[in-house]
Amino acid sequence: MVETMANELETGLPSIRQIQTLIREEREIELKLVTDDLIVGKLRWQDQHCICLMDQYDQPTIVWRQAIVYLKPKF
Amino acid sequence: MVETMANELETGLPSIRQIQTLIREEREIELKLVTDDLIVGKLRWQDQHCICLMDQYDQPTIVWRQAIVYLKPKF
Amino acid sequence: MVETMANELETGLPSIRQIQTLIREEREIELKLVTDDLIVGKLRWQDQHCICLMDQYDQPTIVWRQAIVYLKPKF
Amino acid sequence: MVETMANELETGLPSIRQIQTLIREEREIELKLVTDDLIVGKLRWQDQHCICLMDQYDQPTIVWRQAIVYLKPKF
Amino acid sequence: MVETMANELETGLPSIRQIQTLIREEREIELKLVTDDLIVGKLRWQDQHCICLMDQYDQPTIVWRQAIVYLKPKF
Amino acid sequence: MVETMANELETGLPSIRQIQTLIREEREIELKLVTDDLIVGKLRWQDQHCICLMDQYDQPTIVWRQAIVYLKPKF
Repeated sequence: MVETMANELETGLPSIRQIQTLIREEREIELKLVTDDLIVGKLRWQDQHCICLMDQYDQPTIVWRQAIVYLKPKF
Repeated sequence: MVETMANELETGLPSIRQIQTLIREEREIELKLVTDDLIVGKLRWQDQHCICLMDQYDQPTIVWRQAIVYLKPKF
Repeated sequence: MVETMANELETGLPSIRQIQTLIREEREIELKLVTDDLIVGKLRWQDQHCICLMDQYDQPTIVWRQAIVYLKPKF
Repeated sequence: MVETMANELETGLPSIRQIQTLIREEREIELKLVTDDLIVGKLRWQDQHCICLMDQYDQPTIVWRQAIVYLKPKF
Repeated sequence: MVETMANELETGLPSIRQIQTLIREEREIELKLVTDDLIVGKLRWQDQHCICLMDQYDQPTIVWRQAIVYLKPKF
Repeated sequence: MVETMANELETGLPSIRQIQTLIREEREIELKLVTDDLIVGKLRWQDQHCICLMDQYDQPTIVWRQAIVYLKPKF
C-alpha cells in the first residue's frame, strides 16, 4: 500500500500527468472557470491547490483548482 | 477492513463503475456543468479529480469532477 | 469506535437511510440543483459521490452530490 | 485526545448544538441557499451531510449542508 | 508533531485568531457571501463549520463558512 | 515520509511560496472571486483557510481561499 505525502502531487493520475505533459510541451490551453471566464495561455506549473497560466505577455495567473470547470488544449 | 490507496479509484462504487462502462462502450453522453454549460461527447478516462470527454472532432476536454452537476447517457 | 471503510455508505445516517427508503419505495422526488435546475424522477441508487435518478422514460441521470441543493419527496 | 467516529455528529460544536436546540424547540427558521432560495420551516433532524426542514404542510425538504449559506431563527 | 482534535478550532491560525479578536472587541464587520449578499453585524462565536453574526436588533444569523467570500472589519 | 501538521502551511508548494514572496515584496495583486468581484491590494498574510489583502487605505479584507478563482500580480 502506497500513501501519498501531504506535499506530493499524485503523478500516477492521468489528470496530473496530462497537465505535466502540457507544461513540458508549452501547449496553449483554455481554462473555463466557475465565474464563466475563459482564460487562455500556457501552463507553467501545478501543485495540489493551484495551476499557473502564462498569458501572451508572459504574465502569470495563479488559478485555484477549485475554480476550474474544464481545460482544453488548443489545436 | 479495506482502505483505499491514495492513487486508486474506488471501483466498487456504482458511479465509478458506470462511468467505466460508458468509457468501454464509447457511449455518447451529456454533462451538465456548474456554469450551466451542457457538453456532449464520449468519455475517454476518469480519475479521482477529472473525467475526460472527447468531442466530435476527437479533441479532449478535461472536466474537473467538482464542476459536474449531472451526466446523462444519450439514447 | 467504528471506522467507515472507504467504499461503504454510512447507513447509520438519517440522510442516507431516507434515500434508501425512497429508492425501495420507488417514490417520485424532486431534486434542486446548484444550477437552479429542478429535476424530477425516481431514485435508483446512491453512493458516496452520486445519486441516480430515473426519468419518466426510465432513462438515468447520474447527479453528483456536491451539486444537490435539496431533495423533496413528492406527495 | 478525542477522535470523532465517522458516523457521529460533533455535538460539542456551537453550530451543531444550536441546531439541536432549534429542533427540540420546533422553532421556525429560514434557510438561505446557494441558489438564492430562501426556505422557511421547522428543523426536524440533522446529520453530517444534511438537515431536514418541515414546511407548513408538514412535508420534508432534505437540504444538503454544502448548499446552505445561512440560517436565521424567526422571531 | 501536533495533531488537532476533531472538535477543536486551530487557534494558532491568523484567520481564526483575528475572528476571535473581532468577537472579543465586538467590532462591526461586513461579510460578503457566495450569493453576493453583504451582511453586517457583530461576530458572536465561531466553530469549524459556522460563524454567528448578530444584527442591529441582536438577532443571530448562523453563516456557513463554505459560503463566505470575505470578511471586512468596519471602520 | 513527511506528514504535515494540522496547523502548518505546506511551504514546499509553489502556490504557497509564491504567495509568501508576494507578501514579502508587498506587490500589488488582483484577486478574482467566485462572486465575480475583482479586488485589488497587497497581501499581508496567508493561512490554510484565508489570505488577507490590504486596500489602498490600509484596511484589511480577509478572503476565504475557497472563494478565490485566480490571483494576478500587477505589473
